[in-house]
Amino acid sequence: MTAVRSTLPDEARRVSCEALQDTLVDLLGLSLIGKQAHWNIVGPRFRSIHLQLDEVVSAARNFADTVAERSAALGVPPDGRPETVAKAFTLPAPKEGWVRDSDAVQVMVESLQDAIGRLRERIDATEKADLVTQDLLIGITAELEKQRWMFDAENVPGEG
Amino acid sequence: MTAVRSTLPDEARRVSCEALQDTLVDLLGLSLIGKQAHWNIVGPRFRSIHLQLDEVVSAARNFADTVAERSAALGVPPDGRPETVAKAFTLPAPKEGWVRDSDAVQVMVESLQDAIGRLRERIDATEKADLVTQDLLIGITAELEKQRWMFDAENVPGEG
Amino acid sequence: MTAVRSTLPDEARRVSCEALQDTLVDLLGLSLIGKQAHWNIVGPRFRSIHLQLDEVVSAARNFADTVAERSAALGVPPDGRPETVAKAFTLPAPKEGWVRDSDAVQVMVESLQDAIGRLRERIDATEKADLVTQDLLIGITAELEKQRWMFDAENVPGEG
Amino acid sequence: MTAVRSTLPDEARRVSCEALQDTLVDLLGLSLIGKQAHWNIVGPRFRSIHLQLDEVVSAARNFADTVAERSAALGVPPDGRPETVAKAFTLPAPKEGWVRDSDAVQVMVESLQDAIGRLRERIDATEKADLVTQDLLIGITAELEKQRWMFDAENVPGEG
Amino acid sequence: MTAVRSTLPDEARRVSCEALQDTLVDLLGLSLIGKQAHWNIVGPRFRSIHLQLDEVVSAARNFADTVAERSAALGVPPDGRPETVAKAFTLPAPKEGWVRDSDAVQVMVESLQDAIGRLRERIDATEKADLVTQDLLIGITAELEKQRWMFDAENVPGEG
Amino acid sequence: MTAVRSTLPDEARRVSCEALQDTLVDLLGLSLIGKQAHWNIVGPRFRSIHLQLDEVVSAARNFADTVAERSAALGVPPDGRPETVAKAFTLPAPKEGWVRDSDAVQVMVESLQDAIGRLRERIDATEKADLVTQDLLIGITAELEKQRWMFDAENVPGEG
Amino acid sequence: MTAVRSTLPDEARRVSCEALQDTLVDLLGLSLIGKQAHWNIVGPRFRSIHLQLDEVVSAARNFADTVAERSAALGVPPDGRPETVAKAFTLPAPKEGWVRDSDAVQVMVESLQDAIGRLRERIDATEKADLVTQDLLIGITAELEKQRWMFDAENVPGEG
Amino acid sequence: MTAVRSTLPDEARRVSCEALQDTLVDLLGLSLIGKQAHWNIVGPRFRSIHLQLDEVVSAARNFADTVAERSAALGVPPDGRPETVAKAFTLPAPKEGWVRDSDAVQVMVESLQDAIGRLRERIDATEKADLVTQDLLIGITAELEKQRWMFDAENVPGEG
Amino acid sequence: MTAVRSTLPDEARRVSCEALQDTLVDLLGLSLIGKQAHWNIVGPRFRSIHLQLDEVVSAARNFADTVAERSAALGVPPDGRPETVAKAFTLPAPKEGWVRDSDAVQVMVESLQDAIGRLRERIDATEKADLVTQDLLIGITAELEKQRWMFDAENVPGEG
Amino acid sequence: MTAVRSTLPDEARRVSCEALQDTLVDLLGLSLIGKQAHWNIVGPRFRSIHLQLDEVVSAARNFADTVAERSAALGVPPDGRPETVAKAFTLPAPKEGWVRDSDAVQVMVESLQDAIGRLRERIDATEKADLVTQDLLIGITAELEKQRWMFDAENVPGEG
Amino acid sequence: MTAVRSTLPDEARRVSCEALQDTLVDLLGLSLIGKQAHWNIVGPRFRSIHLQLDEVVSAARNFADTVAERSAALGVPPDGRPETVAKAFTLPAPKEGWVRDSDAVQVMVESLQDAIGRLRERIDATEKADLVTQDLLIGITAELEKQRWMFDAENVPGEG
Amino acid sequence: MTAVRSTLPDEARRVSCEALQDTLVDLLGLSLIGKQAHWNIVGPRFRSIHLQLDEVVSAARNFADTVAERSAALGVPPDGRPETVAKAFTLPAPKEGWVRDSDAVQVMVESLQDAIGRLRERIDATEKADLVTQDLLIGITAELEKQRWMFDAENVPGEG
Repeated sequence: MTAVRSTLPDEARRVSCEALQDTLVDLLGLSLIGKQAHWNIVGPRFRSIHLQLDEVVSAARNFADTVAERSAALGVPPDGRPETVAKAFTLPAPKEGWVRDSDAVQVMVESLQDAIGRLRERIDATEKADLVTQDLLIGITAELEKQRWMFDAENVPGEG
Repeated sequence: MTAVRSTLPDEARRVSCEALQDTLVDLLGLSLIGKQAHWNIVGPRFRSIHLQLDEVVSAARNFADTVAERSAALGVPPDGRPETVAKAFTLPAPKEGWVRDSDAVQVMVESLQDAIGRLRERIDATEKADLVTQDLLIGITAELEKQRWMFDAENVPGEG
Repeated sequence: MTAVRSTLPDEARRVSCEALQDTLVDLLGLSLIGKQAHWNIVGPRFRSIHLQLDEVVSAARNFADTVAERSAALGVPPDGRPETVAKAFTLPAPKEGWVRDSDAVQVMVESLQDAIGRLRERIDATEKADLVTQDLLIGITAELEKQRWMFDAENVPGEG
Repeated sequence: MTAVRSTLPDEARRVSCEALQDTLVDLLGLSLIGKQAHWNIVGPRFRSIHLQLDEVVSAARNFADTVAERSAALGVPPDGRPETVAKAFTLPAPKEGWVRDSDAVQVMVESLQDAIGRLRERIDATEKADLVTQDLLIGITAELEKQRWMFDAENVPGEG
Repeated sequence: MTAVRSTLPDEARRVSCEALQDTLVDLLGLSLIGKQAHWNIVGPRFRSIHLQLDEVVSAARNFADTVAERSAALGVPPDGRPETVAKAFTLPAPKEGWVRDSDAVQVMVESLQDAIGRLRERIDATEKADLVTQDLLIGITAELEKQRWMFDAENVPGEG
Repeated sequence: MTAVRSTLPDEARRVSCEALQDTLVDLLGLSLIGKQAHWNIVGPRFRSIHLQLDEVVSAARNFADTVAERSAALGVPPDGRPETVAKAFTLPAPKEGWVRDSDAVQVMVESLQDAIGRLRERIDATEKADLVTQDLLIGITAELEKQRWMFDAENVPGEG
Repeated sequence: MTAVRSTLPDEARRVSCEALQDTLVDLLGLSLIGKQAHWNIVGPRFRSIHLQLDEVVSAARNFADTVAERSAALGVPPDGRPETVAKAFTLPAPKEGWVRDSDAVQVMVESLQDAIGRLRERIDATEKADLVTQDLLIGITAELEKQRWMFDAENVPGEG
Repeated sequence: MTAVRSTLPDEARRVSCEALQDTLVDLLGLSLIGKQAHWNIVGPRFRSIHLQLDEVVSAARNFADTVAERSAALGVPPDGRPETVAKAFTLPAPKEGWVRDSDAVQVMVESLQDAIGRLRERIDATEKADLVTQDLLIGITAELEKQRWMFDAENVPGEG
Repeated sequence: MTAVRSTLPDEARRVSCEALQDTLVDLLGLSLIGKQAHWNIVGPRFRSIHLQLDEVVSAARNFADTVAERSAALGVPPDGRPETVAKAFTLPAPKEGWVRDSDAVQVMVESLQDAIGRLRERIDATEKADLVTQDLLIGITAELEKQRWMFDAENVPGEG
Repeated sequence: MTAVRSTLPDEARRVSCEALQDTLVDLLGLSLIGKQAHWNIVGPRFRSIHLQLDEVVSAARNFADTVAERSAALGVPPDGRPETVAKAFTLPAPKEGWVRDSDAVQVMVESLQDAIGRLRERIDATEKADLVTQDLLIGITAELEKQRWMFDAENVPGEG
Repeated sequence: MTAVRSTLPDEARRVSCEALQDTLVDLLGLSLIGKQAHWNIVGPRFRSIHLQLDEVVSAARNFADTVAERSAALGVPPDGRPETVAKAFTLPAPKEGWVRDSDAVQVMVESLQDAIGRLRERIDATEKADLVTQDLLIGITAELEKQRWMFDAENVPGEG
Repeated sequence: MTAVRSTLPDEARRVSCEALQDTLVDLLGLSLIGKQAHWNIVGPRFRSIHLQLDEVVSAARNFADTVAERSAALGVPPDGRPETVAKAFTLPAPKEGWVRDSDAVQVMVESLQDAIGRLRERIDATEKADLVTQDLLIGITAELEKQRWMFDAENVPGEG
């Protein structure tokens, strides 16, 4: 069933929607591990990081929605089912159980860092295929780089 | 690391937090498959069901947060990581690709129906263990039964 | 036409939905007689009671909606048609014509008192049938008892 | 007890308040049967009509309040008690039990159609008695004609 | 200086703007004496009437603005200067000094009653001159009659 | 296809809907030329008139929606397509290119003046046909006369 | 009838409430003449000054309320009746009829200037009597001096 | 009269403003035909599509404003007058009279499809001329592609 | 532990913080006894006084926060623990049990009267020590005098 | 004076209102010591804990209001006067003077832990007496357990 | 201390952050001189330009925040200290003292014109270095070009 | 050009406006260095202090606006240009580059401390010149002393 027609030629659609599907997995994964850390964090910075993690989750959820709907708009059904996310998600994540605050900060820096690296490759890949998709990926990268900086700045140790 | 102490005796805590962890998986799964259907639905009722699915997702996300934080409050770290959800989630879900509107309605009726059946077992199971947890599960059941009804009513075929 | 399936066994559904239907009639009736008093009240406390009555009406309308939708969610169509309400509604009510403020207060105390007595019986009746329905009835009772107290406190005569 | 004096001569008051009382019954009845359909509707258009019906209910409730208070302002106590509404309400209404979506639409078209016909007679009747009352009835008619159109447009069958 | 041209013929403009100017004085006067009572009221119903008076003032101020701007729109400059209001305002008003609550209610009933009587004459007078102006006066009358009723209902003595 | 039935007799419907269709064209035209002036205005009063023009546009758009939906409610499909507006719109309008602020004010005075003249004729024409439609036209005239006055007052030259 | 007791000794109360009564008259007068100018202003700066005048009116009304209630709180009934304002108000004011924009600006500068001069005398007069009243007068002066500056800045002529 | 200077060289300005003017016409046309369909739609999906069409209109109006103001900002006066829109608008549009819901969906898919095709050409055309204008056109395309998808998904027929 | 340094010299700090600590106790006490009366009031003015008391409580809580934080800002830790408030609070208060409405009004007049008398002494005491603290106390006095007046006005008996 | 009648039998009322009175004291005490810590906290986590404490205070105040009004609704006047709270409040609390941030966290964990233990006993005690009161206590416990967890998680020491 | 790591290679980071630092200085400078003109403007267009200048300030402040945080996110600490801004800011600015309205408009046109020229160079410079930074600069340029146009349009002289 | 006349005698104006100009520089400087620290802060307390600094910036900006407009209102043009601020600003400030969180806290304590000392001198200086200006300075001091306390409390080291 080819339900929704595309406004892009086949190859451009393939490249764009592959980038969008991969981004969707990264964002849904980030929203789940962000919540995981939000719930399990312990330590003297609990409240501060607990709240900060919810801002990452909120951004990731909103971007995931936009990214999935853009794929649909280009004629390719996005896939965000639990098993798809679990299989394809490869960013660093907190382990099971309580998470010390400094570990939560560290894992978010690493996870966002990797997500950004992958997004920058997709920005290059979509340049020729679809400037509209590229522009969306640029906007997501801007926000994730801001979030990464704030965890990174928080990660600088206090004075000995 | 036993980070957070419990306000419940060991056995009551075990029973309550098992019920909460199972509910967490169901709710996170529902939020993912609700979005999957929200993005991939096609058919003459697209807009109406597209919007209705987002209300399920919103309810599922909020309840998931409450359920996970209650588990933490009782001293057991909740687990909502992608691989945990994928492994433990067993409710009916839409398949990959575009989803016809009538199929989306049908799968939500079934998925919510099963989720409610499992919640009602947990309401019984937590009666002795923790009335506070039970009350939370009762509230979730009320909302999911309302959502299930609305999809079920929508599911009644029109006149021939 | 059995349009909406139930998540409860037959007997539990029967007991719950009977309690819900009776509550629906009481609440719709309360919303009508609350407005009747709101419009026809006269006397030195006009404005104060006029406003207070609208809070009862607003609460009764919202609860009526929840109660009726819960019955539908359990698979039994609720009945709130004018003739049904008129036939089944038995709580004390203001007479036709202008209502003195002290009479309005008195009739609301009595009407709410009776409504509460009937709700408390239904709380007992639904304990085994459906804890979700029971919890809803408990919430309604809490609010009506608060409203009843406020009219009752208002009802204490001033100093001679 | 003649509690509230009138700003109109006797005959003008009688004509105006009769029109207002009849309108009050129609509006309270519409608000009850609109809710009845809102709760019991089933079929593929459930969500869309379910929401539309609540807009009728909301309009009917607000107009009922205005109409009743205008009657009081003119010195005649309005009567909106359950038995009065049941006895005097004669507009078409949904039957007991589940209501198919197409039937709900049809009954609302008819009920609003009749209500409008009666309102237009009262607009004529109050022209000489009280332009302020007439203006209120004109405003109600405008809104009910808009609601009627929307159900009527919804009522046009789809392509064979 | 004839600054603003009229959209009405001369006689229609004269009739309409005379009605508007007289209404402006009544409304500005009502807003001043409403505040006077709001500030000086004493007695067991202080708070209730104090708040009610501010609703009259707010309505009077908003209508005064509309009425004055309509006169300007018709090409006749409105006059709401202190000396004009003082000279032309003839409605009953509270005396200097503290005002007992029952006296405040009584004077508002009388003042609104007179204002309404004068408005109804202007509604007749403008029927031929300008239906737009007439419609505005009808709307003001509806609101003042509602306010008058509420004070009149409040004015009914309690039980002996 | 006679999709929506009318609540008016044929002749009354014809007269009313003709008045509504003509008003629709005037309002859609006003909204387009108001924006045209909003974008192209230059001169020392740029900001002040630029903002004022947007208020005309906003009013015109809202009234156009109401007018068109009233025609549909009376059973006659309204026509607001680009070619219809272009053909039937005859009010004064700004020329192509930059518009000096004083010219923008002048053209709005003239355009609103003409629109009001035409509305007043339709108010007369619909008096017998449909008081509900007439009341809507009266409300539009009140607002446009207010807007016209404000541009006309702005149009009075400063001191030499 | 000495209804409300004072928290100040007799002489302090007399001085404070005299200052408050005089301020009340100035503020009510300002609110009336500000509206007078708001309605009757004409000229190329119509919209800008029309809006600015409403800010003066709004400030004057709010301060008048505070000032009158403070007098009541100190045990002296304030007097804001039309005839009192007309008799006691002596600040410069616009004449009857249309007001050129530059004249409106000029009269507001003068009227606010005089009001400020009188307020500064009352600030001195209340220093010993009541610091709470003085603080209120200081706050009013700050706002009126800001308003005066804005009209004065607007009053500087453009380049020749 | 060259009123507003440009921040772009002549050729870049010419290319950019041509793209903007063409886009302006498409968007104003879309806003008019979207409303046309919004008013005239009939059929079982009336309410759902009626609301969806208003979202297209709202987006088209906001983008039209941005596009026209960007042209002005680049020194070229935009042209959105009725006759210009009527002459230059070439996208598919609903015919006169009632529009069946399925036809409304179909014509919106086609009209948005064509608008998108034209926008993508302008994105290429402005790449060298002005990246700021190109970025604006990219944003408009993203939104229109989302709207097109939603109508297209709605357009998939239900099960036989 | 001298945790927070002061911006005031020692003696000025001592005087200011003593005034602030005494004010803190009065305000916390007022907030507790205001709530006590709010809950236990009975009589025909129940609703009116019940609401008025909550405004006193709200003001007292906000001022208490400001007063305590100012003391901390000046380097002296405030003390608002239950035993401190109980020991130091000496204003008139309602007795245990139900409180007749007229008694509630009377006790609030007396309690606010005493609180104001004590505040006025502290305004004098802090004049030399710290004008910033004095200004805060002046603001609190203004509000409490307003509250006192409203209860006092309410306290004037009705007509015999 | 038995002002307000009860909807519960005597023994049930005694048990319920005892539980409510004890809860009221705990909540008022928590609101006072929460503010005490909010004002006096010092240390590197000042801002984070300062804000968190205000959330406890806000929750405690709202629950105290509900609890006290429920007691009144059941016919027993609640007692929240300063001396009652001081005498009956026994939960751990911060000492006089500045409070180190880690001490503030520790004392809140202990105080909430004790409050929860006491609430759980009352949940058992009211099960037979009044399910409505029990449900209220369950809701309070859920919130306090959440607050306790957040302080406890914050209490886990950082890495050595 | 290299506190925050970069997601860009060294050269790309250097180019991007130089562009960001220069933009930061321009924006902070614009926010300061915009306020300077906002405070010191005099002349017949005072109010209109006074308000318009605040919109420039608001935009400049928000963009400055985004630009500085992007530099930090890329690993280079931004510098917005007073001496840095004073040294590096070179855009045209108002002189000390009162500023005639026409001069304020003129200086804003020139200052925004220069700022835009510099931004367009940085858009070119960052194309290869970082598309995310480029996209941010494009967004800022769009807004400043809109602001420049509005001052430029305002700058066109009125008719002689 | 002496554009705006003063409401103060020359010497009083000189003293007041000197105090206002010096305060303006301190506040604009604080807003710039607050942002500088907001952007460059690193360390485990990043998020908490990052947010707190924005509250200082927001307060400083709002007070700067009030202070500058007061100077204009008194007839002296304020000077907030970049070079003026850079030259006259002498409060402690963060150095270039990343700022450790503890250093950011320390520098804010010192900078606010100095600003407060200078404000207190100006409060004395303006006592005779202008009580309105003094009152404004008192209000600013209250807020800055609160901000200083919060940084100072945050500055107390944790337990060793």
